[in-house]
Amino acid sequence: MKALILAAGRGRRLQNLTAEKPKPSIKVCGVPILLRNFLILKKLGFDVAVVAGYKSEIIKELLKGEEVEFVHNDNIDRGNAYSVLCAEKILKNENVFVVLMGDHIFSEEFLTAVRDLALSEKSSAAAHSPRMTAIVCDSDAALDIEEATKIRTEDGSVADIGKNIPDWTYIDTGAFICTPHVFNILERAFSKKEKVEWSEIVREARMKTHKINAFWADIDTVEDLKNAENEILKSLVKLEDGIISKYLNRKISLRISKWLCSYDISPNVITSISFILSIISAFFFMSHAFIPYSYAIGGIIAQISSVIDGVDGEIARLKMRTTGFGGFYDSVLDRYADVFILSSILFAASYHFTHHLSHHEMLINISLFIAALTGASLVSYTASKFGEIYRDKIEKHEGIFRFIPAKRDERIFIIFVCAIFAEFNT
Amino acid sequence: MKALILAAGRGRRLQNLTAEKPKPSIKVCGVPILLRNFLILKKLGFDVAVVAGYKSEIIKELLKGEEVEFVHNDNIDRGNAYSVLCAEKILKNENVFVVLMGDHIFSEEFLTAVRDLALSEKSSAAAHSPRMTAIVCDSDAALDIEEATKIRTEDGSVADIGKNIPDWTYIDTGAFICTPHVFNILERAFSKKEKVEWSEIVREARMKTHKINAFWADIDTVEDLKNAENEILKSLVKLEDGIISKYLNRKISLRISKWLCSYDISPNVITSISFILSIISAFFFMSHAFIPYSYAIGGIIAQISSVIDGVDGEIARLKMRTTGFGGFYDSVLDRYADVFILSSILFAASYHFTHHLSHHEMLINISLFIAALTGASLVSYTASKFGEIYRDKIEKHEGIFRFIPAKRDERIFIIFVCAIFAEFNT
Repeated sequence: MKALILAAGRGRRLQNLTAEKPKPSIKVCGVPILLRNFLILKKLGFDVAVVAGYKSEIIKELLKGEEVEFVHNDNIDRGNAYSVLCAEKILKNENVFVVLMGDHIFSEEFLTAVRDLALSEKSSAAAHSPRMTAIVCDSDAALDIEEATKIRTEDGSVADIGKNIPDWTYIDTGAFICTPHVFNILERAFSKKEKVEWSEIVREARMKTHKINAFWADIDTVEDLKNAENEILKSLVKLEDGIISKYLNRKISLRISKWLCSYDISPNVITSISFILSIISAFFFMSHAFIPYSYAIGGIIAQISSVIDGVDGEIARLKMRTTGFGGFYDSVLDRYADVFILSSILFAASYHFTHHLSHHEMLINISLFIAALTGASLVSYTASKFGEIYRDKIEKHEGIFRFIPAKRDERIFIIFVCAIFAEFNT
Repeated sequence: MKALILAAGRGRRLQNLTAEKPKPSIKVCGVPILLRNFLILKKLGFDVAVVAGYKSEIIKELLKGEEVEFVHNDNIDRGNAYSVLCAEKILKNENVFVVLMGDHIFSEEFLTAVRDLALSEKSSAAAHSPRMTAIVCDSDAALDIEEATKIRTEDGSVADIGKNIPDWTYIDTGAFICTPHVFNILERAFSKKEKVEWSEIVREARMKTHKINAFWADIDTVEDLKNAENEILKSLVKLEDGIISKYLNRKISLRISKWLCSYDISPNVITSISFILSIISAFFFMSHAFIPYSYAIGGIIAQISSVIDGVDGEIARLKMRTTGFGGFYDSVLDRYADVFILSSILFAASYHFTHHLSHHEMLINISLFIAALTGASLVSYTASKFGEIYRDKIEKHEGIFRFIPAKRDERIFIIFVCAIFAEFNT
C-alpha cells in the first residue's frame, strides 16, 4: 500500500514557529511532524512518497537516510491538488492509495484505522469502482473548530467542504483513500483553471466519508502544538502500569520525557542511569552504620530510579525509535536491580553492628528474603512467559490479581515507604 | 486448503496388528495413525475430509469429536481411486487440494512442506494449469524399499509407477497435490473399467514430481512400526536441550515416554510429579542430621525429577496434545522447584547442628545463594523475554554462551554430582 504525503505547500503561518521553515518540519515532542508521520506509516507497512516543493531541501533533510520516494512539485502556486497530480506517475498503477496532509499530526491508532480501511477497499469489490473516501471525525475530536475544514455530506458523500460552510456534519482530517480515478478528476479540473485546491477535488469526486475518531491534529497555533504534545504524551501510558505508576510515576516521568525528548539522548542511556541509581540505593540501605538517614536516602533514590525506569520507554516511543534490544535491556536490568535492592535490605536487616542476630532470627530474615525475591522474579517471569506462549499481554487476563500490588512500581514504592518508616523507628 | 485422507481400503495385512482393524487405526506411540495425521493437518491449517469405507464405524470412532468431514465410499472393491471420486462434490470447487494415503505416517515437517508447496501452487499462475504433483522421496528415505511404490520420471513427470517397475527414480510417499482436473481423469478411467487404483490415475495425469525428504513411513511390518516410533521419538529432542539433557536425560526420558504414551496420563500430571520430586529432594538436602545419606538421596531424586521434567513435554508432543497452559505450568513450576532446591542447599550449608557458622561464613553462603538463584532465574527469564520480543529461540543466537552449563538440566546435574561428593566428604 502506498501513501502520499503532501509537503510541498507554504502552509498557513504558525506564529514564530515557521517563519523560516515549512510546517511539516515543526518538532512535536522532539520529532518533526513529517518524520513522525513517515515512521508510523513505515511501521504500518506503507511505502511512502512525499511531494516537496516549498523549501524542498529542508523537507528532504528531514527524511535523510529513510526509505522514501520524493516527488517534486515544480509550481507550488497551483494549489495543493497540483501536488497530487505531480505524483501521478508513481500512483497510477496502484488500485488504492492513501493521501495525507503533510502538516497534520496523525496518531498510530488513526493511521492503523486508515490502513485497515484502505486494505479492505483494496481487497473488496469496491476497489473496482472509482469511489474514494475522505476520512472525517466528529467536531469534538478536532482541536480547533474554527480553523478546521468542515464537510457537509449528502447521502454519505461529500456535498460541500471548506472552512466557512453552513450546516456542516463532520471535520475533514486531511486523510484520504484514493483510486487512480482521482487523476481523471485532477486533469479535468486543471484543464479549466490554473490553481486548484485539494478540497475542490474532494467535492468534485463526491468522495464518501468514513469516520475515525482516533487522535489527529492540525497545528495552527502554539496552543495547538501544546495540546498535541499532551495527547501524544498521554498515549505513552502502558496497559501494564501498576497503580503507583499510573497515579504517581507517570505524572513525573512524562514531564521528564517531554523535557528530555528535544535532546539527543538514547533511551538505553536512561535505562542504564536508572539501574545505577538502584545500585546506589542498595548501597545506602547497607550503610546505615556509617551514613545518617541512609535508609531514607536509599528509599528516595530507589523511588527516583523507579520513576526514571519509565522515561526510557517513553522517550523511545515518543521518538518512534523503540527497539527489541531496548526492551530486553530494560527488562533484564530491572531484574538485576531487584536482586541488588532486596539483597541490600536482607543485609541491612541482618547485620546490626550493635548485636548479633540469633540463628532463628536469621532464618526468618532469609526466608522472607527468598519469598520476596522469588515473588518479584516470578511476577516478571510469568508475564514474559505468558507473552511468549500466548502472544498476548497477561495484564488483559489477570482478573482479581491486578489488585495485588506486586508490579515493580508498586514493590519499589512499598520499599520506599518502609524505608522512610524504618528510618524514624530505629 | 483442504486435505483428503483415503481411509476406506482394507489395506495390506500387518501381521497380528490388523487382523480385526483397518490400518489407519494402528497406534503409533499411543496415537492411531489417522488421528496423528489429522491432528498435524489441523495444526497446519488444513480443513480435513476423510473417505471411509471398510469398517467405517472404526474410522469414524478414531476422529470422534474432531472437526472433520466424512465421505462414504460405498464400494471399496472399485480401488482407492474410487475413494477420491467419492469426494468430488466437496473438492470440485477447490483450486488446489491435497490427497493423502490414510495408512501412511507423515511427520509434521513433511506435511508442512506439502502445505507450503500447495499454497504456492495455489497462489501462483500454475494453479490455473491442471498439472498436479506427486510428492516423492529418495530411496534412502524409505523404511522398506522392497514394499515401497516406485516412480519412474520422464522430463520431471511420472512415466511409470508401481511396486515392481524397472529403472525407477523415486519412491512414492503417498501424498499428492491435486486440482479438480483430477476428476476428469477419474471419470474417464472409470468409464473404461470397474476398478481403478490411484497409482493408475497418477500415471494417467502425468503428475510432476516434487521431492520432500522429511520423515514419512508406510507401516507394513512390526519392524516398520518400531522404526517409525523411533523416528518420532527422535524428533522430540528440543533445540534448547542442554548437554546433559541431550546425552543423558533424553535417553532415559524417551524410554519412559515411549512406555507411558500408551496410557491415558495427562502431561500436566507428570509435570506435577516432577515438581513434587524436587520438593522431596529439597527436604532430603535439609535433613542430613536425621537421615543417613540424605545428601546423596536428595541429589539422586533431584536428578530423577530433572529426567521426568522432560517426559511431560515429550508425551504432549507424542500425543499431539501440546497446550499453552502445559508449557506455562511446566516453566513456572520449574522456577519454584529451583527456588526450593537452592534454598534447601543454603540451609544445609548454613545450619550445622554441631557448630554455629560465623557471620562471615554466613555472608559467603548467602552471597553464593543469591548468585545461584539470580543466575538460575535469569537464564530462564532472558530466554523467555527474548522469545517474547523477537519471536525466536535464544538458543539459535547464544554463540559462545552455549558452552556454559547453566541450563536447568545442567544445573541440576551439577547439584546431583556435588551432593554425591558432599555425602562422602562430610
